[in-house]
Amino acid sequence: MTRTLGELAAFLEGELQGPADLSIEGIASLDQATPREISFITQGRFARLTDQSRAAAFIVSQEYAGLARPLIIVPHPYLAYARVAALFAPPVRRWPGISDLAHLDPAVVLGQDVSIAPLAFIGADVRLGDRVTIMPGCVINDEVRIGADTLIYPNVTIRERCTVGERCIIHSGTVIGSDGFGFVPQEAGHVKIPQLGTVVIEDDVEIGANCTIDRGALGATRIGRGVKMDNLVHLAHNVEVGEHSFLVAQVGVSGSTKLGKRVILAGQVGLAGHIELGDGVQVGAQSGVHRSIPPGQTFSGYPARPHREWLQIMGHLPKLPELYQRLKQLEHTVSELSARLNQGEEGSKSKVES
Amino acid sequence: MTRTLGELAAFLEGELQGPADLSIEGIASLDQATPREISFITQGRFARLTDQSRAAAFIVSQEYAGLARPLIIVPHPYLAYARVAALFAPPVRRWPGISDLAHLDPAVVLGQDVSIAPLAFIGADVRLGDRVTIMPGCVINDEVRIGADTLIYPNVTIRERCTVGERCIIHSGTVIGSDGFGFVPQEAGHVKIPQLGTVVIEDDVEIGANCTIDRGALGATRIGRGVKMDNLVHLAHNVEVGEHSFLVAQVGVSGSTKLGKRVILAGQVGLAGHIELGDGVQVGAQSGVHRSIPPGQTFSGYPARPHREWLQIMGHLPKLPELYQRLKQLEHTVSELSARLNQGEEGSKSKVES
Amino acid sequence: MTRTLGELAAFLEGELQGPADLSIEGIASLDQATPREISFITQGRFARLTDQSRAAAFIVSQEYAGLARPLIIVPHPYLAYARVAALFAPPVRRWPGISDLAHLDPAVVLGQDVSIAPLAFIGADVRLGDRVTIMPGCVINDEVRIGADTLIYPNVTIRERCTVGERCIIHSGTVIGSDGFGFVPQEAGHVKIPQLGTVVIEDDVEIGANCTIDRGALGATRIGRGVKMDNLVHLAHNVEVGEHSFLVAQVGVSGSTKLGKRVILAGQVGLAGHIELGDGVQVGAQSGVHRSIPPGQTFSGYPARPHREWLQIMGHLPKLPELYQRLKQLEHTVSELSARLNQGEEGSKSKVES
Repeated sequence: MTRTLGELAAFLEGELQGPADLSIEGIASLDQATPREISFITQGRFARLTDQSRAAAFIVSQEYAGLARPLIIVPHPYLAYARVAALFAPPVRRWPGISDLAHLDPAVVLGQDVSIAPLAFIGADVRLGDRVTIMPGCVINDEVRIGADTLIYPNVTIRERCTVGERCIIHSGTVIGSDGFGFVPQEAGHVKIPQLGTVVIEDDVEIGANCTIDRGALGATRIGRGVKMDNLVHLAHNVEVGEHSFLVAQVGVSGSTKLGKRVILAGQVGLAGHIELGDGVQVGAQSGVHRSIPPGQTFSGYPARPHREWLQIMGHLPKLPELYQRLKQLEHTVSELSARLNQGEEGSKSKVES
Repeated sequence: MTRTLGELAAFLEGELQGPADLSIEGIASLDQATPREISFITQGRFARLTDQSRAAAFIVSQEYAGLARPLIIVPHPYLAYARVAALFAPPVRRWPGISDLAHLDPAVVLGQDVSIAPLAFIGADVRLGDRVTIMPGCVINDEVRIGADTLIYPNVTIRERCTVGERCIIHSGTVIGSDGFGFVPQEAGHVKIPQLGTVVIEDDVEIGANCTIDRGALGATRIGRGVKMDNLVHLAHNVEVGEHSFLVAQVGVSGSTKLGKRVILAGQVGLAGHIELGDGVQVGAQSGVHRSIPPGQTFSGYPARPHREWLQIMGHLPKLPELYQRLKQLEHTVSELSARLNQGEEGSKSKVES
Repeated sequence: MTRTLGELAAFLEGELQGPADLSIEGIASLDQATPREISFITQGRFARLTDQSRAAAFIVSQEYAGLARPLIIVPHPYLAYARVAALFAPPVRRWPGISDLAHLDPAVVLGQDVSIAPLAFIGADVRLGDRVTIMPGCVINDEVRIGADTLIYPNVTIRERCTVGERCIIHSGTVIGSDGFGFVPQEAGHVKIPQLGTVVIEDDVEIGANCTIDRGALGATRIGRGVKMDNLVHLAHNVEVGEHSFLVAQVGVSGSTKLGKRVILAGQVGLAGHIELGDGVQVGAQSGVHRSIPPGQTFSGYPARPHREWLQIMGHLPKLPELYQRLKQLEHTVSELSARLNQGEEGSKSKVES
C-alpha cells in the first residue's frame, strides 16, 4: 500500500512540511527505515539519529519543526505513529466463513461474517457476534458468548459460560475460565471447592499469550473495559480488574483482589488475595503487595511500600556492610572513651581524695 | 436442580433450624445470593453481612446458632459449602463416546465409557482407564497411561510414556513431559542431554492451567497423591512433590528438588535445584529458597529464612535510612565527646602540672 | 538396542577398562541403573555411591580409574553421558508424511521428508525445510519459514511471517510472534500500536514449553544461534538474545532489551526494557535488573548489583535487628558518657573555682 506524505498529513491532521506527493510505503524505526518509509521522533534522545536515518520523512512534534527534512508536525508523535502503523498494517488474514474442518455444535448462534478456522471447536449454545474471528486450535466451550469484532488467536481455550465483550483481542495459548484454586484441606485429602462462577471480559480488552484467567468460585472474575494484559499473566478466581488498567507480563493476582481503574502493575508483580488497589495505583516491577493501596499511590518493593520510601531504603541497603563496620568502630571508640572517663574520674577522685 | 433445606441438612448431617421444606436452588455468596439460594458464613467478619443478605438460608457453625434466619448448623461450614457446591455444580459436559473428528491410533486401549472429543489426538499404545475424559485439542502421545475417572481439559499436551493416576484433573494448556532443561556447555554450542525419563502423576492430583512439568533426565519427575497445583507452575526434571502438597500459581521448582508431604509453596516462589523441603514445610509468596528446609518449618524472603526472622528483618528494613542518620549523628557526638575529653585531660594535666 | 562396552568406549574415544564384550542396554543414574545399564560419575560426591550401584559399568574421569569395576575413562564424563544418552534415546516418533487430518493451505512449500501430524494447521505460503516435524495441534500461520531438521512439539503456535532456523526444537504450548505489548495511553482508552515486526529464530535454538516470544513492534525480535530457553520464559517485542545464551524458567525480558553472547539468566529473573547485558553476563535467580551490565559480570539481587556486593549485603541483612539494638544501646551509653563528662567538667570547674 502506498500513501503520499500529503495524505498522511491530512489523515493525522498534522502540518505538512515538504513535498505533498512524496510516496510512502510504510513506517519504520529511525535506523531501519528505507527511503520509501516514514519514521518518527518520540523522544529527544532519538532526534540526533535523524541525520543517519534514510527515512523519506518524519513525524515530529513542534519542537523539531526546524529539521531540514520532509516532516509531518503533530502534537503527539507517538500516537500518530500508532495511527500510521495501523494504516500500513497488513490486514489480519481470517478464514473465509466456517471451515469444514472445524467442529461446530448444531446449537451455535452466529452473527454475520463470522470466521471459524479449521481445527477450531465450538460447543453447544455458543453465541458469536458479527465479524468474530476464531483461529485454528481454539476451543470455545458451551454457552460462551463473544461480542462483535472480537479476535481470538490460535490455541486459545475459553471454558463454559464465560463471556467476552466486543472488539477484544485474545492472544494464543491463553486459558479463560479454568477452575479457581480452591480446596478445603483435610487429613484424608483436600476437598475440591467446585468453581461455579464464570469470567466476564468487557469490551476493548486485550489479553496476551499464555495467560490464565480463572473462573469465579461463586460469581464472576471480571476484567473491565479497555484493560490491556501482557503475556503469562495469572488472575485467580473472583479477581476484578478496573477499566483501562495495564497488567504487564508475568503478573499474578491472588483470589478476590480488586483493582481500580487505570491501575498499572509492572512485570512479575505479585498481589495477595482479598486486597484492593485504588484507582490509578501503580506498582513497580517484581513487587509483592500484601495490603490494600489507596488511590493514586505508586508502590514498590517486597513487601511493597510507597515508591519513594522504597527507593530511599534501597539506596541505603548497599551501605549496610559499611554501616555495620562503622557501628563496630564506634562501639570500640565509645568503650575506650568510657574507660578513659572512668580513669579520669578515678584520677579526679584520687586527686580530690589526696 | 432443587433441594429442600431439610434434604441439605440431612446431606450435611447438620442441625436444621428453620422450615425443612424450604426450596433451595443453588448456593451463593452472602451479597449475591437470591431468595432461592443458600449461603454460608465461614469467617466472623462475614457474619454481620447476613442482615443485608437475601439468601433463603445459611450454613453456619454453632457460634451463629442465634441468627433469626433459616440455618443449617455444622461443625465445618467451609467444608459444608464445598459439599453443597458440588451438589449444585452443573455436570461437566463430556463428548458422548469417541468423536469421528478425533485422531486415535489403532493401537489404543480404552476402558469403559471413555470420552474423546473432536480434535483430540491419541497416539500409539495409549491406555485410557474407565470414564476418562479427553477434551478438544488435547494431544496424548504414545504410550501414555491415564487412570480411571481422570479429566483432561482442552489443549493439554501429555508427551510420550508419561502416566497420570485416577481421578486427576488437568487444566487447559498444561504440558506434561516436555524435555528437562539439560545441556553440556561447549564452546562450539551446548550439547543437549537427551531427557530419557518420564513424568509420573499419582491419583487425585489437580494441575492448573498452562503449567509445565518436565520429564526426568533419567528416571521420573513425580507428583504425589492428592497434590494440588495452581496455574503457570513450572516443575523441572526429576522434581518430586510429596503427597497432598499445595503449589500456588507461578511457582518454579528447579531440577531434582524434592518436596515432602503437605508442603505449601505460596505464589511466585522459586526453589533452587537439588534441595529438599521436609514434610509440612511452608514457604511465603515470592520467596527464593536456596537451601534445604527441615520438616515443619515456615520460611519466607529472598533468600528465604525462618518466617519470624524474615518478618523481624523486614520490620527493621524501613528504619535503615533513619538508622544511618542516627549512626552519623552518634559518630559526630562521640567525636565531640572525644575532643572534650582530650581537652579535659589536657586541662587536668595542666592543672596537675601547674 | 544393545551395545557392547567396547563399542561404547570406541564411540566415546575413551579408555576401556573391563570386558569389551559386556552387553549394555541403556544408561541410568547410579541408584537406578540395572546390571544391564551403564552409569557415570560427574561429581565427587557421587563417587562413593558406586559401591551400592548395580550398574554394569561406569563412565568416569581419570581420577576414578582405580575403581574395581568395568570402566570407560574419558576426559569429560558429563559430555560422554550426554552422548551415550543420545545413542540410547528412543527416536522421536514422527507422523509418516502429511496427515489427511491436517490442514495445509495449497500454497505451502515443503522440503523432503516433512512430517505433518493430524490436527496441525499450516497457513498460506509457509515454507518447511527438509525433515521438519510438525506435531499435532500446532498452528503455523501464513508466510512462516522453518529450517531443515527442526522439530515442533504439539500445540505450538507460530504467528505469521516469523522464521525459525535449522535444527531447532520448540516445546509444546509455546507461542512465537504474538503481538508485543504496545499502547498509547489515552483518556478515552489506550490506542493499540500495531505490531508490524516479526520474530527471527536462528539455527540450533531450543525453546521450552509455554514460552511467549512477542513479535517486534517494527523490526524483529531475535534469538541468536544456539540459544537455549527453559519453560514459561517471556520475551517482549524487539528483544535480542545473543548466541549460545541460556534463559532459565520463568525469566521475563522487557521490550528492546539486548543480551550479548553466552549470557546466563537464572530462573525467574526480570529485566527492564531498553537495557543491554554484555557478552558472558550472568544474573542470579529472581534478580531484577534495571540497568545495563558490562560484559563478563555476574549480578544478583533486587535491584541487581555485582554478585559479591549482593552476597555481602545479604550476609548483613539478618543482623539488621541486632544492629538497631546495638545502635540504641550505644546512643544510651554515649548519652550517659556525655552526662558524666558534663558533670565531670562541672566538677572540675567547681573544684577549680573552689
